[in-house]
Amino acid sequence: MTGWLVIAGLGPGDDALVTPEVSGALADATDVIGYIPYVKRIPERPGLTLHASDNRVELQRAEHALALATAGHKVVVVSSGDPGVFAMAAAVFEAMEVGSPDWKALDVRVLPGITAMLAAAAKVGAPLGHDFCAINLSDNLKPWALIEKRLRLAIEADFAIALYNPRSKARPEGFARTLDILQAGCSEDRIIVFARAVSTPEEDIRVVRLGQATAEMADMRTVVLIGSSLTRLIERDGAPIVYTPRSVPS
Amino acid sequence: MTGWLVIAGLGPGDDALVTPEVSGALADATDVIGYIPYVKRIPERPGLTLHASDNRVELQRAEHALALATAGHKVVVVSSGDPGVFAMAAAVFEAMEVGSPDWKALDVRVLPGITAMLAAAAKVGAPLGHDFCAINLSDNLKPWALIEKRLRLAIEADFAIALYNPRSKARPEGFARTLDILQAGCSEDRIIVFARAVSTPEEDIRVVRLGQATAEMADMRTVVLIGSSLTRLIERDGAPIVYTPRSVPS
Repeated sequence: MTGWLVIAGLGPGDDALVTPEVSGALADATDVIGYIPYVKRIPERPGLTLHASDNRVELQRAEHALALATAGHKVVVVSSGDPGVFAMAAAVFEAMEVGSPDWKALDVRVLPGITAMLAAAAKVGAPLGHDFCAINLSDNLKPWALIEKRLRLAIEADFAIALYNPRSKARPEGFARTLDILQAGCSEDRIIVFARAVSTPEEDIRVVRLGQATAEMADMRTVVLIGSSLTRLIERDGAPIVYTPRSVPS
Repeated sequence: MTGWLVIAGLGPGDDALVTPEVSGALADATDVIGYIPYVKRIPERPGLTLHASDNRVELQRAEHALALATAGHKVVVVSSGDPGVFAMAAAVFEAMEVGSPDWKALDVRVLPGITAMLAAAAKVGAPLGHDFCAINLSDNLKPWALIEKRLRLAIEADFAIALYNPRSKARPEGFARTLDILQAGCSEDRIIVFARAVSTPEEDIRVVRLGQATAEMADMRTVVLIGSSLTRLIERDGAPIVYTPRSVPS
């Protein structure tokens, strides 16, 4: 049996956001590997082994997947969102690069998914409708000083900004510092979207002005979108619409 | 009949990258509106009217969609990729904000799709596996000076960079200037991916070093990915893998 390795994005939570390409790979797999809550989304069936592991063991999980595929298994590593955006694809390639030479010969494919910032943006309108950037606020793997530098430059560039992993129990202070930087560099009426658990039953979306934003509005399951200086709100009955126009006046 | 308006992303081209959510909306629609090549992707069926229009008429197309939905039609505006990323969603909200007050009362939803940069990234590995930004190189609706400013700041921030609409017949010189800015600000071995028509029969992907990149490598259908200073190449039999590690040394 010839093994293969697929690194697949399950999207933000709703099965209606899983691409047919990913569903097809899951249907052909012998093994599914991933973080516990993502593996829970995969229905059991005969011939399929589910391997759920805890958070923060991404490299070990990647090595396990590479070894199984090399041994002939048909392996899908599942990520939330898109596997290439702050998720498992980079971890698999880090492991591949320094691991067994066999691993580099594998049939390996990355299958894209709907990443959290784009699902969140769609829910409120089109806040990322103009130039934007995505920053992972976790400083587990990079210095906090680099995060601050990128935030300041993103504000200067007037990008819309998507923040992933804004706040965890282990890192309660980083997002508060981020709000300080934003409040120092942007007008207090800048629009911020806190989008928690988008497309799941726990979905909770709040649209506020920067002056009203507090660190407690974000947690591990939140993606935060900060508008550019041109991002606008359309007030109407029901939820307002947030969008960034395509034009910038000269 | 109560009308509604959906702005849906068809992904980069392959139907296996269209989400079930989008397919469901298309199955319920009475009218599909969009740029000619995107509407061509929708199969005809009884009860469905297809409205294909040319490029550069986004606002008129948006007004048409809003008027039809207000009149009771079930309207899907189709975009390539994700409708919120340099596509139709912002145009619809621009039209809604200044148009008939009825339009603001509409049932309107944006359905996300696989945007070109994430499809392209997946094809080569995980070049956007760390902080990144997305810049539309078209200066039809914004001053070129702002594009240059954002490029310089993105280089200073050491973001991976995705460039949409790098080069068209009407704007042949912008991408050449972009390469000059990149070559002045980055090492000549910086990795660049030219991904044309990803997931279509015309797909063509080239991975080069910045020193070898030329303006002719991009056209209207290309998305260009520039690695950060840490983006790496794994050489192997067949296509190399491009990825940006999750860690930045302090």
